Amino acid sequence: MNETLNVIARRYSCRDFKSEMPKDEILHAIAQAAVQAPSGMNRQAWRVIVVKDKALMQEMEAEGLSRLAAMEDKSTYNRILERGGKLFYGAPCMVIVPIDPKQYAPALMDCGILCENIALAATSLGIANVICGLTGLAFADSRAVEFSKRLGFPEGYAFGCSVLLGYANTAKPPHVPDEAKISFVG
Amino acid sequence: MNETLNVIARRYSCRDFKSEMPKDEILHAIAQAAVQAPSGMNRQAWRVIVVKDKALMQEMEAEGLSRLAAMEDKSTYNRILERGGKLFYGAPCMVIVPIDPKQYAPALMDCGILCENIALAATSLGIANVICGLTGLAFADSRAVEFSKRLGFPEGYAFGCSVLLGYANTAKPPHVPDEAKISFVG
Repeated sequence: MNETLNVIARRYSCRDFKSEMPKDEILHAIAQAAVQAPSGMNRQAWRVIVVKDKALMQEMEAEGLSRLAAMEDKSTYNRILERGGKLFYGAPCMVIVPIDPKQYAPALMDCGILCENIALAATSLGIANVICGLTGLAFADSRAVEFSKRLGFPEGYAFGCSVLLGYANTAKPPHVPDEAKISFVG
Repeated sequence: MNETLNVIARRYSCRDFKSEMPKDEILHAIAQAAVQAPSGMNRQAWRVIVVKDKALMQEMEAEGLSRLAAMEDKSTYNRILERGGKLFYGAPCMVIVPIDPKQYAPALMDCGILCENIALAATSLGIANVICGLTGLAFADSRAVEFSKRLGFPEGYAFGCSVLLGYANTAKPPHVPDEAKISFVG
């Protein structure tokens, strides 16, 4: 097993971060890895926004939690409450990836590809991480335009996904890979 | 720069493969990396199907090309013709990733995440690769059910994406990363 396979194998979704902020040098290396991601027809219809603004993160978290609380289906809200009532698990920073929603399906694929580059680059640098779609809740209602502006989304772009970054307060093992999902034809 | 960042930086989309088939041991390692991918709520609503069946690949390629040729917009068809008229660029094998389309947006994100694990695992093992959405053309019309069955898609699953794998006949440099797409907030 080479080092990249090892990083892929040991990556896990961290849900308990320390408040310590990673150095800019490390965050730059992760952002670099992000923009090296392939995209359909090399359209690169995404941005990589590293958010270190604590107040802004707290506002997005509060907005996301109130959107969750207002949903008829309380299952996600209750799961988050059981996990400590935090959408961002105490992460000191995050990468937000807005996408061009005009080509929605390829944009989502490209966004997933890019987020995995972030997760693996972070893991390789000792930075705990979790790909976090729930951040999108902050963009689901009345504050969407405001948050998009404060983050500098290009005109017409929408929230795609985010990756929380930091140092693990509690580490955990990766999920057990399900070999039964692999098959060979021919 | 560590080895994982190096693999991320040197990965490129190969569009000219040798016919030589990678060893099963290598394809297994790549499939392993695929099922280690994170997915929203760890739902893992995908499969990893390694296709080495040359006849099946040729049939899917022919079907995809005729679907392209039948489209009113000929731009993609003409681009493929300029590149040699091959959808699969001579690749000896591929991974097909069917997804559960019931939760379409998260399934596409998860599919992108998984395909990037494949691309990076392959690159780390010296296997050229390209994430290839055009394979989906073979599933766009009358042969969708037949191909899905021959590949063993689970009931209700649909084509998500594919990754072509093999040895590069012609290598090329990766795309130039666009630093302007990175910003810091806070």
